[in-house]
Amino acid sequence: MDFLPQSLQSLIHEFSELPGIGTKTAQRLAFYLLRSQHSLHQKLGTTLLRLKENILLCENCAILTDQSFCTICSDFSRDTSTICVVEEALDALAIEKTHDYKGTYHVLHGAISPIDGIGPEDITIAQLEKRLKRNDPIIKEIILATNPTMEGEATAMYIHNLLKPYDIKISRIACGIPMGGDLEYADQMTLKNALEGRHIY
Amino acid sequence: MDFLPQSLQSLIHEFSELPGIGTKTAQRLAFYLLRSQHSLHQKLGTTLLRLKENILLCENCAILTDQSFCTICSDFSRDTSTICVVEEALDALAIEKTHDYKGTYHVLHGAISPIDGIGPEDITIAQLEKRLKRNDPIIKEIILATNPTMEGEATAMYIHNLLKPYDIKISRIACGIPMGGDLEYADQMTLKNALEGRHIY
Repeated sequence: MDFLPQSLQSLIHEFSELPGIGTKTAQRLAFYLLRSQHSLHQKLGTTLLRLKENILLCENCAILTDQSFCTICSDFSRDTSTICVVEEALDALAIEKTHDYKGTYHVLHGAISPIDGIGPEDITIAQLEKRLKRNDPIIKEIILATNPTMEGEATAMYIHNLLKPYDIKISRIACGIPMGGDLEYADQMTLKNALEGRHIY
Repeated sequence: MDFLPQSLQSLIHEFSELPGIGTKTAQRLAFYLLRSQHSLHQKLGTTLLRLKENILLCENCAILTDQSFCTICSDFSRDTSTICVVEEALDALAIEKTHDYKGTYHVLHGAISPIDGIGPEDITIAQLEKRLKRNDPIIKEIILATNPTMEGEATAMYIHNLLKPYDIKISRIACGIPMGGDLEYADQMTLKNALEGRHIY
């Protein structure tokens, strides 16, 4: 790569530091930007430099926003009696895309993981409890939608135990075979969960 | 995606305009940059803004460079009697990685493709011929390493015909089954070429 211009080499190097982008993809992206007529490289460069300006966490649900309260929490048509607890803002984004959930969210910004030194105090669990205390009679259900991984399950369990004293319905999203999946290729835990979580027609 | 901060939405949108990057990957990249501690977004942003500064084409071989002559053409240890003709600078990069080729290159910056309105005058064929005239006695072999596609083959054929009058060896890279490939899955043209191009032990 030595013979390429310095600016191009830097770009390829920096692209390849991004997750899921190897050297070949980085090269392709860099050459694409070099050839692109619409000065996409300038738009992208400017956006990147301004990325962390004006990014706040919603004071209510801790989702990323550029105001004090996010658009979901300030939307009066949303059902404030249900809170869906997710690990990351991207998870809320995924749920929003189903167009099926009209409640609010609470973003933990991580999951409890002793092996990585992340305890309950490192994620926004205390903020969730404060929110409950503040709005106690309004909130009727907490849906625990952390990932069905070791860390996500531990986090769900922890929040479940913590919120038991409150008179609130606490639920956990279903774990099972994904749509279009094949039982033959499903792992034992998934299959076990799918059987246990079966529902009657 | 509406509830995300504006700067994050723009970044996701611009990433997803790059080839091979869909919305999900764009989201993952944007969130990764948002979280990264090492201000990678600033480095990447600055590099992108400076991308097209100081990018020239080598006056000899038309490869991308930041000087008048590229590091390959200015390297006296390279064998100037052989020119490897490639479509793009990335192809030269791929050949360099084999560490097996010590000659020089000529980058066409495209291939003849009447359907896209690209004729011989739109790529650097004239520059290649000028280079031959200038260095006639030195140059002994031209390796045509355009892609084995319709356009690449047409370009190789065109250059072959154009350079016939010169007393120079003209060769074409081999087309056949790639290493680790399977004859069962090879297409007919590749198999035909592999048979035709067989060599005796």
